[in-house]
Amino acid sequence: MTSESPKTLINGASCNSLAVSDRGLSYGHGVFETIRVSQARPVLWEQHMARMLQSCARIGIKVAKDLSHLLSNDVRSLCGSNSDGVIKIIITAGTGGRGYSTPEITDTQRIVTLFPMPDYPTGNTEHGVKVITCDYRLSHNSRLAGIKHLNRLDQVMARSEWQDPEIAEGIVLDCENNVVEGTMSNLFAIKDGVLLTPSLERAGVKGIMRDFVVETALSMGLETREVSLGLDELKKADELFVTNSVIGLWPIRQWDKQRYCKGVTTAELQRCVERLFDEKVSDHS
Amino acid sequence: MTSESPKTLINGASCNSLAVSDRGLSYGHGVFETIRVSQARPVLWEQHMARMLQSCARIGIKVAKDLSHLLSNDVRSLCGSNSDGVIKIIITAGTGGRGYSTPEITDTQRIVTLFPMPDYPTGNTEHGVKVITCDYRLSHNSRLAGIKHLNRLDQVMARSEWQDPEIAEGIVLDCENNVVEGTMSNLFAIKDGVLLTPSLERAGVKGIMRDFVVETALSMGLETREVSLGLDELKKADELFVTNSVIGLWPIRQWDKQRYCKGVTTAELQRCVERLFDEKVSDHS
Repeated sequence: MTSESPKTLINGASCNSLAVSDRGLSYGHGVFETIRVSQARPVLWEQHMARMLQSCARIGIKVAKDLSHLLSNDVRSLCGSNSDGVIKIIITAGTGGRGYSTPEITDTQRIVTLFPMPDYPTGNTEHGVKVITCDYRLSHNSRLAGIKHLNRLDQVMARSEWQDPEIAEGIVLDCENNVVEGTMSNLFAIKDGVLLTPSLERAGVKGIMRDFVVETALSMGLETREVSLGLDELKKADELFVTNSVIGLWPIRQWDKQRYCKGVTTAELQRCVERLFDEKVSDHS
Repeated sequence: MTSESPKTLINGASCNSLAVSDRGLSYGHGVFETIRVSQARPVLWEQHMARMLQSCARIGIKVAKDLSHLLSNDVRSLCGSNSDGVIKIIITAGTGGRGYSTPEITDTQRIVTLFPMPDYPTGNTEHGVKVITCDYRLSHNSRLAGIKHLNRLDQVMARSEWQDPEIAEGIVLDCENNVVEGTMSNLFAIKDGVLLTPSLERAGVKGIMRDFVVETALSMGLETREVSLGLDELKKADELFVTNSVIGLWPIRQWDKQRYCKGVTTAELQRCVERLFDEKVSDHS
């Protein structure tokens, strides 16, 4: 590893490499979380931990009872007192087991890395981004839908469709041509005063920031619906935006050839997301 | 790593661990091959290399022009002069790239491990195996179908459905209830003198041993068809068997509650597979 490598802890100890026999590498038998750190505080920590534990249970990874606590210590140790950045947590099923069979006793691996904040153009947040529609289609799989697992070739394939740095995100449809999400984000639309976001029952990743935006919208009295809509219907929206835990909320100013204005509802939701990042009170226990 | 670990070479050097930032771990952005070694000879080497290179190209992994040659040296170095075992090759897209975007220049990783032959009961080959039908369903994805990539949660989920060591394999269907394959093998049926095997255009892994069996059947003058058939239709077959590069060919003696006899065609194909393993002439160049 070079000296520029981000800092990583594996099972609490400083380390940058993992056994090649790990089921995370062999099969993608693991989950991950990407968490924004604001002034040494991992934002929406409890929500990320809850999703991570649910995801592990869904794909048969047994974890220590105090995993969240151990991870919290890892994050504190990596971040120090006052850093901003991004924490990536990977939990793998560990080594062992002949072939695909998960062994009875596993050495679940806990990998925590601190990255600097990505240098996205500041205009993305302020003026919005340009997105395209990807050709690649997501399969339906209700057993894995919603989980942030390590089988992410779908996203790699979709993301490989453009190189233009002016394009910030690609919107991905499913095999029935319903819009699902962005390659690294969830999608929202506002149409006639109603907040719409694609259902993730059959494909997609259920983002923590997506949950936060839905809850915020509900608390604002905004009608909110999970929908299965095609490209043409969603493009008719009045306002559009994408979210994830690192970027927060980016308004969409252009989707393929269609242009959009940043509306008042998007702006209001965005203020709530930005406040969340700026909060001084720690929710990191 | 403990002293019992199998021997591994990474990019030609003895090493058991990989950078946690590798795209193989992060996204399953890689492919693998599992190759039986018989008297220091990797069986069907050229075929495995051809599939591996095609698979890399399909998921955007750029490889060195002399990759097969380098791997051949790795295998020779690991196997010595006279060992039997299993070689597992993993090729990953390497580190780098922010998020899902594949960087222009990648440090593709070449990981080769020699394992001992798994101790499957000898009766599996001779008397056949018991298989069950898995509840887990495979999604359709023609862009990834056939490739032996590292996104293998489908197989892990399906394999987790049984613990009984008497059950040697689970047969997996797709989302339209067509039979596709076993969790670690391809499936064949013989019905009215015709060799049938599920089409893998939309799901499944196109095994090297599957290709060998199809070619052998054709050279025997046996009519061979790729089919999309449901459970009930396939269970009506006269003979059934599963194949992969390590096990060779296992006749099926019981599928769920239905029992089968090892027929003459299965026995003849099996002899060809066993001869392939026993060949003295090296096809390893």
